[in-house]
Amino acid sequence: MERIRTIEAQQHVGQRVRLQGWLHSLRQLGGITFLVLRDGWGTMQAVSEDMSAFSALNEQGCGVESLITLEGLAVSEVQAPGGIELHQPIVQVITPISEPPPVALNKRKLSAQATTLLDHAVVTNRHPTRRAVLRLASGVMQGYRTALQAKHFTEIQTPKIVASATESGANVFKLDYFGRPAYLAQSPQFYKQIMVGVFERVFEVGPVFRAEPHDTTRHINEYVSLDAEMGFIEDHFTVMAVLRDVIDAILTTLRTQYAADLALLQVQMPTVPERIPHIHFADAQELILREHGLDVRGEPDLSPQDERWLGEWAKREFGSDFLFVTGYPMRKRPFYTHPDPQRPAYSNSFDLLFRGVELVTGGQRLHRYDDYLAALAAAKLPLEPFESYLEAFKYGMPPHGGFAIGSERLVMQLTGLSNVKLATTFPRDIQRLTP
Amino acid sequence: MERIRTIEAQQHVGQRVRLQGWLHSLRQLGGITFLVLRDGWGTMQAVSEDMSAFSALNEQGCGVESLITLEGLAVSEVQAPGGIELHQPIVQVITPISEPPPVALNKRKLSAQATTLLDHAVVTNRHPTRRAVLRLASGVMQGYRTALQAKHFTEIQTPKIVASATESGANVFKLDYFGRPAYLAQSPQFYKQIMVGVFERVFEVGPVFRAEPHDTTRHINEYVSLDAEMGFIEDHFTVMAVLRDVIDAILTTLRTQYAADLALLQVQMPTVPERIPHIHFADAQELILREHGLDVRGEPDLSPQDERWLGEWAKREFGSDFLFVTGYPMRKRPFYTHPDPQRPAYSNSFDLLFRGVELVTGGQRLHRYDDYLAALAAAKLPLEPFESYLEAFKYGMPPHGGFAIGSERLVMQLTGLSNVKLATTFPRDIQRLTP
Repeated sequence: MERIRTIEAQQHVGQRVRLQGWLHSLRQLGGITFLVLRDGWGTMQAVSEDMSAFSALNEQGCGVESLITLEGLAVSEVQAPGGIELHQPIVQVITPISEPPPVALNKRKLSAQATTLLDHAVVTNRHPTRRAVLRLASGVMQGYRTALQAKHFTEIQTPKIVASATESGANVFKLDYFGRPAYLAQSPQFYKQIMVGVFERVFEVGPVFRAEPHDTTRHINEYVSLDAEMGFIEDHFTVMAVLRDVIDAILTTLRTQYAADLALLQVQMPTVPERIPHIHFADAQELILREHGLDVRGEPDLSPQDERWLGEWAKREFGSDFLFVTGYPMRKRPFYTHPDPQRPAYSNSFDLLFRGVELVTGGQRLHRYDDYLAALAAAKLPLEPFESYLEAFKYGMPPHGGFAIGSERLVMQLTGLSNVKLATTFPRDIQRLTP
Repeated sequence: MERIRTIEAQQHVGQRVRLQGWLHSLRQLGGITFLVLRDGWGTMQAVSEDMSAFSALNEQGCGVESLITLEGLAVSEVQAPGGIELHQPIVQVITPISEPPPVALNKRKLSAQATTLLDHAVVTNRHPTRRAVLRLASGVMQGYRTALQAKHFTEIQTPKIVASATESGANVFKLDYFGRPAYLAQSPQFYKQIMVGVFERVFEVGPVFRAEPHDTTRHINEYVSLDAEMGFIEDHFTVMAVLRDVIDAILTTLRTQYAADLALLQVQMPTVPERIPHIHFADAQELILREHGLDVRGEPDLSPQDERWLGEWAKREFGSDFLFVTGYPMRKRPFYTHPDPQRPAYSNSFDLLFRGVELVTGGQRLHRYDDYLAALAAAKLPLEPFESYLEAFKYGMPPHGGFAIGSERLVMQLTGLSNVKLATTFPRDIQRLTP
C-alpha cells in the first residue's frame, strides 16, 4: 500500500491507508487508546479499544518521537482533530526512541523560555506551532517571488563575500579571504543597483549579515532580506506602488496556500488598501507634536514610539495596518539616496510601517555618475572602494529605486511573536552561534 | 503613452508605441539610419531615412549606453531582428553617455578575454549573450523550486555563519564573530538533515562557501547550491528518482519560458530519459579497464577523465546525456554517509554525471543516533561540535537522503561555457573579490 500524507487522508475516507511519521502522542482514556502520528505536514489520530493494536510500541520501548508506520481505516469523525481518524490501526516501528524530548512537543502550546526553545531548536522546531511559523516564512518567500516574477523582475544571486563594507564601516563581519581582509555583505544594495543596468527589474532573496552588537528581541545578526530594485521610475512613489502590490500578493499567497498555519496561530490577517496611506516625515513629526505633545521636529529619524503612534493614527484615520512615511531627512540616509528635488534636505525615500513597526525601507537612488562623485565627495568617502559600483553609472543608468523587506520581521509582526529570533529556523545573535 | 517593453511590441503592430532603454547601437547605411534600443528584456530597431529624427542624440553628445525614450510606429518587417521595427521614430534623451564602454556591447559576440569580461562584469553583463546566460541561471532556480514545491518540499533558509566546519576542517573561511571564531557554511548539509525532522521534505537555494585555493576554470569560492533532503526513503534510489524529475522540470522550465535565451546561445538541450541509466562505481571501474585499458580499480574516486569516458559510454549505449554512478567507496565519503548494507565498503551514494561532468552529489545518510556515535568515533572526530546535529537523531529521524546541485555548473554545462566563472553575475575566486 502506498504511503499517503496525513493531510491527504480526507480523500481516502472509507479506505485503509498507510501513514508514516513520528509518534506524536499516545494516551488512554476510558479503555480507549488514542495514538497521534505526526508527519511533515500534519497529524492524524488513530483510535482503538484493543490495546494490543499498539503492542509493538511497548515491546520496543517506544516513547514519543519514535518513527512508525501506521495503517488503518480512514473514518469521518466530527470529534477528531481535522474531522478524520483511523480505526482498526496496525502499528509498525521503524526506529524506537526512548528518551523524552527536552520540551514536550505534543502539548497545544510550547511552554518554555525563548532560550530553551532556541537552544533546542533542532527539536522544538518540530512543534506544530513552530512549524506553522516556519512554514509561513517559506510562504512569504514564495509569495514575494511570485509577485515579482509576474511583474517581470528577474531573480538574481549576488556575492555575499565582498571587498569592502557596503553601507558603512561599522557593523560588518570581517573575514580572512586567502590572507586578504574581506567582509560579509550587509545588503545586496550595490549589486542590485548594478543589475538594474542589466535586467532593469531584479530581485533577490538571500542572507544578509549585520554585526550589530545588540542583544534584544528585535535583533538578529543574519537574516533573510527580500530585495528588489527597478529602473525607469518616476520617483519613489513608483517603487511604493510596486511594493504595495508585492505585500498584497504575499498576504494572498498566505491566505490561499497557508490557511491552516494562519488558523493554528490565530493570525489576524491585515488587508492592504488599494492605496496605502502616506505621510511626509515632516508632517509626521508635526502630527506627533499635535496629537501627543512631544516635539520631535529636530530629530533626523523616527523612534519606535513615534512609529507606534503613527501606526495607531493610520489605523484610526484610514483603517489601515500599513502606512508609508516618506521624505526622511537626507542627513541620515546613505550617500546613494536621491534628494527631493523640491526640498533637498529631504529625500525621495520611504519606510513602510506595518502595525506601527518599520517593515520595509526603500527609495529612489541617485542615477547620474556626476551625482555619485559629488555625493561621495560630500560624504568624505574615497572613490577607490566604489570603483566597480561607479562603473555602472559611468556607462548609463536609468532613474531607479527599490526596497528591502526583512522577512523575519514580517513573520514576527504577522504572527505576533514577541521575539524576532523565533521567526527563523536557527537564529544568530551576539551570543548564539548554535544550533 | 504608456511605456511598453521591447518584447511586447509584437502585440502593438500598427500602433505607435513608447519604449525606454539604452542606446544599443546607431549606424547609417545607404542614407538610412538604424537605431537599436536595448531594455531589460530585448532590443528593438528603429529606422528612419530622415536623420533629423535622431538629432537629439547628436546635440547632447550621446554615445552608446545613453538612456533614451523612443517612440515610433510598430511595423512588421521580416528583415528586422525579431520581425518588428519602429518607423517614424522620435527620440528623447534621458541621460547622455559619451564614454564608450570598455568592451563593445553591440557586437553579436563578446570578444574579450575572460579576465576583461570579469573585471568589467558590471558592464559586460549587459551584453545580450551574458544576459541570456544569467537569465538561464535564474530559470534554473525557478524550475528547481517549482519542481520541489509540486513534490511537497518546503523551502528553508539556514544559517551561513556556523560555529564549526561542516564537512572537514579544511577549505573553510574563518570569520571573527564578536571576538569568537566562526566559519562560513560549506553546505547546508547538517541543517537540511535536521529540518527533515521538521518538514520531512525540504529544499534550499542559497550561497555556499569553499575556501579551495585552486585557480582553475572549474572553481569558484562562493556558489549557489540547490539543496534538497527528504525523509522516509527506501534508499538512495528513492532520492535519485526525485532528482530525475527535478532535472527534467528544470529543463522544461527553460524550454518553455527561456526559449529565446536558449536560441541565442544555441544551446543543445538534453532530454532526460524516463529512467536515467545507472552504473555501480565498481562496475564503472571495470568498464574503464575493459574499454580503455586503464586500471583504476584501486582508486577511491573517479577522475575527470573517468567521468568523461563514462559520459561517452552512456551517450553511446543509452543515448543519454545523464548517467548515475552509484556506490562510491565509503572511505572517501563523509561520516554521515549510509553504507550499502550488502557491501559495506561501498556507500548508498551517487553522483549524477551530465555530459561527462559531475553535476550532482547525493545519497542516503545515516539516521540512527547510535550509528552516528559509531561513525564519529571511527572517524576519530570529537562529539562536541556535533552536539546540536546529533540531537536530531537522538529524538528520532527517518531514513533519509538528499542531493546538492551546483547551479553554476549546470548553467556552464548546458550553455557550453568554458569557464564556470562566467555562469554567475559576479564570481569570487582566489584572486577576485570585485566587482
